[in-house]
Amino acid sequence: MTAPSARGDRPTALCVMNPEAAPLVLPTEPRRRLAGMVRLLPDLAGAQVHADFPDVLAEAEILVSGWGCPRLTAEVLERAPRLRAVMHAAGTVKPLVSEAVWERGIVISSAADANAGPVVAYTTALITLAARRTLTMAGRYRAGWPEQALRSGGDGLTVGIIGASRIGRGVITQLLGSEAGYQILLSDPYVTAGQARSLGTERVELDELCRRSAVVSVHAPLLPETAGLLDAKLLALLPDGAALINTARGGIVDTDALTRECVAGRLEAYLDVTDPEPVPPGHPLVSLPNVLLTPHIAGAQGTEVRRLGEYAVAEVGRWLAGDPLQGRIRPEELARLA
Amino acid sequence: MTAPSARGDRPTALCVMNPEAAPLVLPTEPRRRLAGMVRLLPDLAGAQVHADFPDVLAEAEILVSGWGCPRLTAEVLERAPRLRAVMHAAGTVKPLVSEAVWERGIVISSAADANAGPVVAYTTALITLAARRTLTMAGRYRAGWPEQALRSGGDGLTVGIIGASRIGRGVITQLLGSEAGYQILLSDPYVTAGQARSLGTERVELDELCRRSAVVSVHAPLLPETAGLLDAKLLALLPDGAALINTARGGIVDTDALTRECVAGRLEAYLDVTDPEPVPPGHPLVSLPNVLLTPHIAGAQGTEVRRLGEYAVAEVGRWLAGDPLQGRIRPEELARLA
Repeated sequence: MTAPSARGDRPTALCVMNPEAAPLVLPTEPRRRLAGMVRLLPDLAGAQVHADFPDVLAEAEILVSGWGCPRLTAEVLERAPRLRAVMHAAGTVKPLVSEAVWERGIVISSAADANAGPVVAYTTALITLAARRTLTMAGRYRAGWPEQALRSGGDGLTVGIIGASRIGRGVITQLLGSEAGYQILLSDPYVTAGQARSLGTERVELDELCRRSAVVSVHAPLLPETAGLLDAKLLALLPDGAALINTARGGIVDTDALTRECVAGRLEAYLDVTDPEPVPPGHPLVSLPNVLLTPHIAGAQGTEVRRLGEYAVAEVGRWLAGDPLQGRIRPEELARLA
Repeated sequence: MTAPSARGDRPTALCVMNPEAAPLVLPTEPRRRLAGMVRLLPDLAGAQVHADFPDVLAEAEILVSGWGCPRLTAEVLERAPRLRAVMHAAGTVKPLVSEAVWERGIVISSAADANAGPVVAYTTALITLAARRTLTMAGRYRAGWPEQALRSGGDGLTVGIIGASRIGRGVITQLLGSEAGYQILLSDPYVTAGQARSLGTERVELDELCRRSAVVSVHAPLLPETAGLLDAKLLALLPDGAALINTARGGIVDTDALTRECVAGRLEAYLDVTDPEPVPPGHPLVSLPNVLLTPHIAGAQGTEVRRLGEYAVAEVGRWLAGDPLQGRIRPEELARLA
């Protein structure tokens, strides 16, 4: 093992992620910027960490983690005595962080903010489609030109947002910026009526949200309190022809109850997540004309994952400069996050 | 026939449209505003105009027309000697205006501007979906979780816009306002390279646009020069996996050629218009997983048609005040418009 002091004073950084993802998350330019700030150790693939606990672990002060980085257990941390900060170039840090991380006082930052942009844009697009009952109209067209009375527009439509998460708030901002004049209802146990008003929304209980909304979009985290939150009873409150959009977590919705509503043709559903995920082969949600089921595509993917690397590199810069991190996650917050 | 002078000096206005549409296009509030500016004659349904040429035609100075208003032929105009202005509370005025209208010097205004907003929002939403290859991903999911390599994001994606119409320009503005950093190519014979640059786009010929774009969206008018514009040869230039979006007019695209590309699974298509429209029952476009075929839902519909009435009423106000009309259509422009 090389003594770090012999290699200069710059702090060391180690990137650990899926090797296929690494060139997309950290392409040449942001990697060069990172290398300008730290002494960059040779990348590790996630699987290598547990396999042989390579020596670079012992040198790393900053970890830039990504998809495929294993959980930072006490055993891993024992081999990484100098580790002080983890900049996670991906969304949720839940699979990454163990109790041992907090005990060691290691700083954790998540690039979830950078993941939010694509989800917000995609979800807002789905709401725009749902406002026109696009799936219903496309489905009916299979049997001939749909009757005029089915037509629906977005102006003044009531949209229910479940969860004022960063993505939920982003979607609200986009909807308020459209010319449609959407009426936005918000249900979130951590948001007061006044806070909801300042967001441009009306705070309501979940049952009222379901009763009044033509389109409902889920933006809550999956927690014990939210598992199965949208159950058969709440789904039954949605008006005939309403749409449910879920780009958050499948487990927040009772999949069987939603499937029954969609099979009955009473609701449209735009589902990017399900529980279980994937759904079993031949599941009705896969082929119903009033359901758009996609394989978890709302978050940063393709060229967009570079946003995550850019965010993590910027966090490294802030940390080195002693500036506050923008994506800092504290232990007490983790339970409330997605 | 009542002598208009006996009824006061206010100009007369007559609304002629489909009676089912009238309460949506001109609900109480804008109708009250209209009645405050003019002497409002009793509404006519479109069919009544030719059936019996009612007396109110002879009184009308301003016509607020909408869906269902028949063509203003020389025969109709003969019964409407006082008619001086037509405010069309709908999109294209082509089915409405005859040569006789121009010969009489009647002012024509179209609310097409007010129809553009919903089309822009819906088309931008479709582009957001196409950037993620949403239909392909949903289609593949039917046979199991799609492979990682199929995933695509919007960042830096090249989008080709055919036609810098008001809707084309609106879509460009929306795309430039997104955080994705889309590269936008523009093909329009009436736009110079410099004008394209000032719109934030790159002007290219249509074949180059097809070769370079991951998503192509049609916003050209249907004219003799654009009929069948996107033919088999141009469609073949689109990269594998590219998407074609058409919310303009079906006749601009060679339907058979596009159908072949979609049956082959080479392209995604988001089609709100087709030629013929509707497509015949059982047409492949109706049921292909990589095609979203909708029955002409992009324009103002449902609550949105009120925008058209509001626009027409505002035009009446401008005309009475001697202000320039915002939707004025002149005979020489009609050929270039959708």
